[in-house]
Amino acid sequence: MSGNVTIVGLGPGAERLVTPEVTEALTMATDVVGYIPYVARVAERPGLTLHPSDNRVELDRSRLALDMAMRGKRVVVVSSGDPGVFAMASAVFEAVEAGPAEWRDLDIRVLPGITAMLAAAARAGAPLGHDFCAINLSDNLKPWSLIEKRLRLAAEADFAMAFYNPRSRSRPEGFARTLEILNDACGDTRPVIFARSISTPQEDIRVVPLPHCTPEMADMRTVVVVGSSTTRIIERNGAPIVYTPRSVTP
Amino acid sequence: MSGNVTIVGLGPGAERLVTPEVTEALTMATDVVGYIPYVARVAERPGLTLHPSDNRVELDRSRLALDMAMRGKRVVVVSSGDPGVFAMASAVFEAVEAGPAEWRDLDIRVLPGITAMLAAAARAGAPLGHDFCAINLSDNLKPWSLIEKRLRLAAEADFAMAFYNPRSRSRPEGFARTLEILNDACGDTRPVIFARSISTPQEDIRVVPLPHCTPEMADMRTVVVVGSSTTRIIERNGAPIVYTPRSVTP
Repeated sequence: MSGNVTIVGLGPGAERLVTPEVTEALTMATDVVGYIPYVARVAERPGLTLHPSDNRVELDRSRLALDMAMRGKRVVVVSSGDPGVFAMASAVFEAVEAGPAEWRDLDIRVLPGITAMLAAAARAGAPLGHDFCAINLSDNLKPWSLIEKRLRLAAEADFAMAFYNPRSRSRPEGFARTLEILNDACGDTRPVIFARSISTPQEDIRVVPLPHCTPEMADMRTVVVVGSSTTRIIERNGAPIVYTPRSVTP
Repeated sequence: MSGNVTIVGLGPGAERLVTPEVTEALTMATDVVGYIPYVARVAERPGLTLHPSDNRVELDRSRLALDMAMRGKRVVVVSSGDPGVFAMASAVFEAVEAGPAEWRDLDIRVLPGITAMLAAAARAGAPLGHDFCAINLSDNLKPWSLIEKRLRLAAEADFAMAFYNPRSRSRPEGFARTLEILNDACGDTRPVIFARSISTPQEDIRVVPLPHCTPEMADMRTVVVVGSSTTRIIERNGAPIVYTPRSVTP
C-alpha cells in the first residue's frame, strides 16, 4: 500500500469552519503530525496515531511526515488557518526539495482552509474588500529590514494589510516599530482591527484608530488588519462595521 | 420575526470546499440572492426563493437583500470564494451606508469561504507561503493608473501576487499591460500560475515562466498567482510543485 501526505488547514478554530474535504482526510489518516495545539483539535480514535511537536521544529516535523508516508502511512499534517499561508505547506516542500529524490514521487496534497485574516475580516465587516497584502511580522526567518521595507511600500501602494504573528514575548519590539512606521507612512486615523482567537470561545475583536494603537493590543494569537486610506466605519448600535469600498475614484 | 442578511462564500466550486456554517445558513434561508452562476449552485427546495441576477448589479442586489431582511426574511447573499475578497460583502456594506438608517440595525453577518487564490495555491504547492498581495485587475471601479502603481510597488516589495479578474472580453488590454509591467519590474523567470475553475470538472492549471506568459492564458475564470523572487519549482514525475520558502536570508 502506498502512503501519502495531506497538508490540511483546520481554519481559525471552530469546527463549523473546517471544510468537508479536510474532515474526510482526517477520517482516512493513520498518522497526524503538527504543532501541539493544532494536533489537540483532532479527535483520537483507534488506528490513528497523533504526533504532536513543539513550535519551531517545522522541518523535523515535515521529515517525520514524509518518512512515514514512504513507509506506507496516510499522514495528515495539520496547520491552523490555511496551510499555505505562513504555515506548514512551505515547510514540507522545503523538506522535499532538500530530501532524498524518492520523496518527490510521493503523493502530496494541500487542502486549503479558512485563513485567520479572512475569518477576522468577516467578523469585522469587509476590510479586505479591495486590494490588500499579507505580511508575517516575525523576523525569525527574514531580516527586519525587509519587513520595514514591505510595510512602507504597502502603505505607499495603499493596500489594506493583514499581519500574522504580530508580536511574541521573544520579540516585543517589532510590533511597536510597525506601528511607528505605519503612523509615519499613513498619517491618518484609518481603522485597525485586532482580532484574537476568532471563532473560539476566547474570541475578541477591537477596532482602534491607527494613532491610538498600542503594541500590547496584539499577541501571537492576534491577526491585525489595517485598513487602506479608503476604509470606512459604519457606526451603529453594537459593533461598528469596518469595510473597504470596491471603488476608488480617480 | 426579525429578518437577517448572511453574506456567504461558496468557495471555488466543489461542495467539499463549502464550510459547514455556510451549508447551515443555506438550509435556514428563505431567500438567496446573487450572481446567476453562484445562485445556480444552491439546491432548490420548498420554502426557498432564489433571486439570481446579472453581473454588475451588485448594489441593486444588495438593496434587494436588505429590503427583504427588513420584511422578516432570512436572506443569504452568495459569492463564490470568500465574500470579503472582491465579492459581495463590500457591496452590501456600501448599500447599508448609503441606505435608510434602519438598515444599520439589521442582523448582518459575513461567513468566510475558501477564496480562489488559496485554492489555486494549494493545487500548485505553496506559492503564497511567504508575504504576498492580492490585486483585482479589473479597472471597472478604479483607475488603471492605480493598478499600475500597485503592480510596480508590489514587485519592489518582492511580494508574491495573486490577481483576480485578470482579463475579460471588454478589457483585453489590461492583462497584456500587466505582463509588460511585471517583466519590466521583475526581470527574471519566476513562475506564474494560471489556475482556472479550480476544484470543478473544468479545472486547469498551468505553470509558466514570467517571460513566456501571454495574455490569452487568462480569462475571467482564472486566478493568476505570480511568485516572488524566491519562489521555487520542484520538478518531479507529474506536475511540478511551486512553493515560496518561509525564509529570506539577509
